[in-house]
Amino acid sequence: MHFGSDNTAPVAPEIMAALNDANQGYATSYGDDQIMDKVRDKMHELFEAPDAAVYLVATGTAANALSLATQINLWQAVFCHRLSHAEVDECGAPEFFTNGAKLVVLDGENAKIDPENLRQAVNGIDATDPHVVQRGVLTITQLTERGTAYSLDEIRALTSIARANNMPSHLDGARFANALVHLGCTPAEMTWKSGIDVVSFGGTKNGLMGVEAVILFNPDHGWEFELRRKRAAHLLSKHRYLSAQMAAYLTDGLWLDLANRANEAAARLEDALLDLPDTTLEYPRQGNMIFARWPRAAHKRAQAAGAEYGPYFGQSMDGPDDELLGARMVTSWSTSQRDIDGFIAALKG
Amino acid sequence: MHFGSDNTAPVAPEIMAALNDANQGYATSYGDDQIMDKVRDKMHELFEAPDAAVYLVATGTAANALSLATQINLWQAVFCHRLSHAEVDECGAPEFFTNGAKLVVLDGENAKIDPENLRQAVNGIDATDPHVVQRGVLTITQLTERGTAYSLDEIRALTSIARANNMPSHLDGARFANALVHLGCTPAEMTWKSGIDVVSFGGTKNGLMGVEAVILFNPDHGWEFELRRKRAAHLLSKHRYLSAQMAAYLTDGLWLDLANRANEAAARLEDALLDLPDTTLEYPRQGNMIFARWPRAAHKRAQAAGAEYGPYFGQSMDGPDDELLGARMVTSWSTSQRDIDGFIAALKG
Amino acid sequence: MHFGSDNTAPVAPEIMAALNDANQGYATSYGDDQIMDKVRDKMHELFEAPDAAVYLVATGTAANALSLATQINLWQAVFCHRLSHAEVDECGAPEFFTNGAKLVVLDGENAKIDPENLRQAVNGIDATDPHVVQRGVLTITQLTERGTAYSLDEIRALTSIARANNMPSHLDGARFANALVHLGCTPAEMTWKSGIDVVSFGGTKNGLMGVEAVILFNPDHGWEFELRRKRAAHLLSKHRYLSAQMAAYLTDGLWLDLANRANEAAARLEDALLDLPDTTLEYPRQGNMIFARWPRAAHKRAQAAGAEYGPYFGQSMDGPDDELLGARMVTSWSTSQRDIDGFIAALKG
Amino acid sequence: MHFGSDNTAPVAPEIMAALNDANQGYATSYGDDQIMDKVRDKMHELFEAPDAAVYLVATGTAANALSLATQINLWQAVFCHRLSHAEVDECGAPEFFTNGAKLVVLDGENAKIDPENLRQAVNGIDATDPHVVQRGVLTITQLTERGTAYSLDEIRALTSIARANNMPSHLDGARFANALVHLGCTPAEMTWKSGIDVVSFGGTKNGLMGVEAVILFNPDHGWEFELRRKRAAHLLSKHRYLSAQMAAYLTDGLWLDLANRANEAAARLEDALLDLPDTTLEYPRQGNMIFARWPRAAHKRAQAAGAEYGPYFGQSMDGPDDELLGARMVTSWSTSQRDIDGFIAALKG
Repeated sequence: MHFGSDNTAPVAPEIMAALNDANQGYATSYGDDQIMDKVRDKMHELFEAPDAAVYLVATGTAANALSLATQINLWQAVFCHRLSHAEVDECGAPEFFTNGAKLVVLDGENAKIDPENLRQAVNGIDATDPHVVQRGVLTITQLTERGTAYSLDEIRALTSIARANNMPSHLDGARFANALVHLGCTPAEMTWKSGIDVVSFGGTKNGLMGVEAVILFNPDHGWEFELRRKRAAHLLSKHRYLSAQMAAYLTDGLWLDLANRANEAAARLEDALLDLPDTTLEYPRQGNMIFARWPRAAHKRAQAAGAEYGPYFGQSMDGPDDELLGARMVTSWSTSQRDIDGFIAALKG
Repeated sequence: MHFGSDNTAPVAPEIMAALNDANQGYATSYGDDQIMDKVRDKMHELFEAPDAAVYLVATGTAANALSLATQINLWQAVFCHRLSHAEVDECGAPEFFTNGAKLVVLDGENAKIDPENLRQAVNGIDATDPHVVQRGVLTITQLTERGTAYSLDEIRALTSIARANNMPSHLDGARFANALVHLGCTPAEMTWKSGIDVVSFGGTKNGLMGVEAVILFNPDHGWEFELRRKRAAHLLSKHRYLSAQMAAYLTDGLWLDLANRANEAAARLEDALLDLPDTTLEYPRQGNMIFARWPRAAHKRAQAAGAEYGPYFGQSMDGPDDELLGARMVTSWSTSQRDIDGFIAALKG
Repeated sequence: MHFGSDNTAPVAPEIMAALNDANQGYATSYGDDQIMDKVRDKMHELFEAPDAAVYLVATGTAANALSLATQINLWQAVFCHRLSHAEVDECGAPEFFTNGAKLVVLDGENAKIDPENLRQAVNGIDATDPHVVQRGVLTITQLTERGTAYSLDEIRALTSIARANNMPSHLDGARFANALVHLGCTPAEMTWKSGIDVVSFGGTKNGLMGVEAVILFNPDHGWEFELRRKRAAHLLSKHRYLSAQMAAYLTDGLWLDLANRANEAAARLEDALLDLPDTTLEYPRQGNMIFARWPRAAHKRAQAAGAEYGPYFGQSMDGPDDELLGARMVTSWSTSQRDIDGFIAALKG
Repeated sequence: MHFGSDNTAPVAPEIMAALNDANQGYATSYGDDQIMDKVRDKMHELFEAPDAAVYLVATGTAANALSLATQINLWQAVFCHRLSHAEVDECGAPEFFTNGAKLVVLDGENAKIDPENLRQAVNGIDATDPHVVQRGVLTITQLTERGTAYSLDEIRALTSIARANNMPSHLDGARFANALVHLGCTPAEMTWKSGIDVVSFGGTKNGLMGVEAVILFNPDHGWEFELRRKRAAHLLSKHRYLSAQMAAYLTDGLWLDLANRANEAAARLEDALLDLPDTTLEYPRQGNMIFARWPRAAHKRAQAAGAEYGPYFGQSMDGPDDELLGARMVTSWSTSQRDIDGFIAALKG
């Protein structure tokens, strides 16, 4: 009953096989391996962006923080949602990598930035006043931290405001595949065709051991990215093992298969949860994350049965049995029907 | 004929097996996996340091830069050798991670800091003058960037100067195992018993896929390290795959076996090279790196045969055939006798 | 009719006299001048804090940013009001001087932090989770950016929350004197007796040419302050001219006289404004700043007459004559009754 | 007998008069004062550079560090002399303002960078290798820290290497006037006509209270400078008092008169010193600084008589009377013949 995080899941067997295959003989280090050439080609094709600069790093926080750092000057602002990973979960990595840019947090329903809030925040900055932090970059998360997905229209509404103010737009795609499968669009549509300039293309949460790609549709900042990556100690010496994972991930649609499995497991879990008494969703489920509420008594039963999930935000198990408490559940490519059934059974008691 | 770098070698089969073994079921993410508990225990035992704080990161530059950052304030100096990795090969990572500390470069034969130079540099700083960058931390590299090893006495000579000036000492052990095998001492002797406070304990160059440990003998800075590691995006989510590599590396002396193989291959290569005409060593070989000089004609032959090594520092192949040019060769656990023989044959012509 | 800012006012004649007096012969540079010894003594006496470390810098932003930087680590948060100078008007100076600490903005009426908001923000941080920016320092502004003053009880309510969470408290006293005169308490009462650890003690807005003091009641961070000050290029070589201003400021209560004059001018202006039709205060006036609203027609008349004040936040003069628009007026020691009368006459038309 | 530093001298009476004059009525703050318009015009005329961006700050370290920060990216190198103020006397301010750029120290006789050393250092950097800190900016000091002046040819020899490698050149002119008077050239000749892109134009050491100008001949980085200046807390609110000093300094050649007085006093002191037994210069005197050596016995006599100068580098007064020890003497516009005579008399005994 493992619903704590998609980070606790194992590596997909196809990826392990690719790692074993890559472990033959010698390979040029530091990103000049031949497998990386394949990764680059596949990304160009996948994103319909033959000029894009493509890089690999080992963590999503590195992908985000390096992406943001290449897009702004240190006296500028990063516009992000109040609940975004960059603001909440990275211990100040964006501030570190940007050398002290300011994160301007914006609100909006379902963990998505409200365009009106972005417009007001951007307009509130006097671009001729050296006393104020200047306009910098927009970053949105897809899936959001509450498991919702921006529609293409919603993405365009935000990026058009950014572009009108000469700001680039970044997409934190730690769960890119899960969102794409939900939207049923192409990678190009969800990114540059909707105004996105830079993408953190996640793999780790979707079956890789630890690889995220950064795609810069405008390759002008590519050399800067390479220097910043090394300076931040994120250029791996035995880089072929990153390349091999990503190459396998992009082969024969594996990345979409894995995301489909995760999303479908979440859909089944959602259905089963909604059949339970007094159980409701807190956010619409649009990928592999479910945020729901149910009575404390059911929480107690699930935890007693060893279920792993996020009875998040430090909620106490002391209190009335019928009080409704929130829960976060994340599925992955490896979620089994047995786990789902067991979890539901435990909640039912 | 792969002598370009120990970073181009594959992962040792025992390590691949450990990764495959670790890929079963679910595991707590972000360093709280159970394998990491084993790694910590093994390190405590290995270093005879039960209180040491132990962490894993994916690159040697991260291990070094994070280690240094926890040891100093940003207005202080890092004392390092002019040829050190921190100064030469990290694109300013120490400056980035320390938020602008100054690297004070020191000279010394065989890529080892001369204690007298350290003493003068440290004494040259007025610890009561706010105009000058203050004393900070000593860092030495073992093996050095020229393949030599500090003796225990040499380490102590430097760390005692540091300690007398209230400075901690860091050891960049990217090739820790190769040096240890050469010295024939214990890990504790080469580190804290010789005055070292923090170690970057390398694994990647010695058969791992990408794991380095940081060992803080004084665990007081452990929490700071954890925060800095996350802030620098070096806390891997699926951390068990770092742990699994390091656990296997430390099991049954695998790490020493691998280093022995590399050093022995280097010894055989050294012997064969010294039998060649007009061939001399530039530095004493004390591990798995050889710096030698031989005539340009032999370089041409080797390169024509596809030998990989470092005809380093941008040397031109245009010029007199009998001019002596330098070369850097690095062996690894996977260096074959065939490669050595083929290389020597090519040099001979 | 100069109500735009207390920064546009001239230097008080007593201060100019002190500068002329100090301009005799030679004096030790970089803060070791004898006048600074007097400043230190006067500050110790004034604040009843004989051990406090006292330093001078030339700008309020430097005083604030250096103060904050000495109190926290770079992975920590600065808790400040959403309208605070540190957040709004310093182009990211706190982020620069702290090397990327995060400013957590809090709301509260009258530009004062609501203790409940502080408590929630602090409690929301898990002090054992390396993924989140940690608790750091509280900073409050006295007078606030809307001209209000925290009462001693209000200060204590905030600092006690900070202290309970092991956080120091900083007071941005750019208008320290104006607030003190309003509260009628002692400097010690408004600071360390109410839980403040570090003070930016402003002088520039109250008649100096450009001097602010920083007072660290716990002198342990004094040496760090000296190094950071130099590193930030804020140690003035001909420091005696800073000392001379501050020494004169603190002599015979000049600093309080100047603030009294400013506050009394504001009181008279307030009274006169409130006699005008359709004119109301937006915030209670508690020092030398007035935030009021009146009809656009009156704004037009005042601006036509050349009155200087802040028809702030980019308000347009196009629109209905009877629409109420905000205004910010700041008085200083040099505000004349003639300016007040002229301003009122212009508003009346 | 005040020869310790030109920073210990008083402010020139013309400057004090200008400050008193400027202290009339109200003036726009933060650099938008009308006197600054005059300063800008005067600088444009003086430097024959009508498009140059001109800014004022209060310290030389700020002028240097801000200048360098606008010229490079943080992964680049600052090439400077080993004895330069930026390297030795600013507690890491260049590293702070550039967010961790690396200072590459170069040697050269008479505290001047040897062009061959610059060429080697620049050529040693592989501009395609992300592992190494990249080429950034050249900075030279005029007068140098040992009182010597680069000739125009010497400046051009260095800046032409910089320009050939796409690097801008900065001139730290803390003693700009003293050097100019020595060379007998125009400001344009000593700067942009010799390849200099940015100048720190010092005033404080030459009779001002605390003002340095920064002149960016290419104004493209002007807005960046304004933002960085504010972010570094170096935008003074009552800016008119900086402007007033600089305007007076540039009026009727005052700045050259003051420098002439300082240099002439140094020339007279030099002559008198060289008449003393066993006294020699360590560096050629080319401005207002003298570096000489004489017997310890003479040092003892001078110090007993209360002479202020730099028996620098922590030399001990314990030792043989006839041992030659170094001394640094700096004259200023205010150096009196009586001080010179008294000093010589004391040395003679």
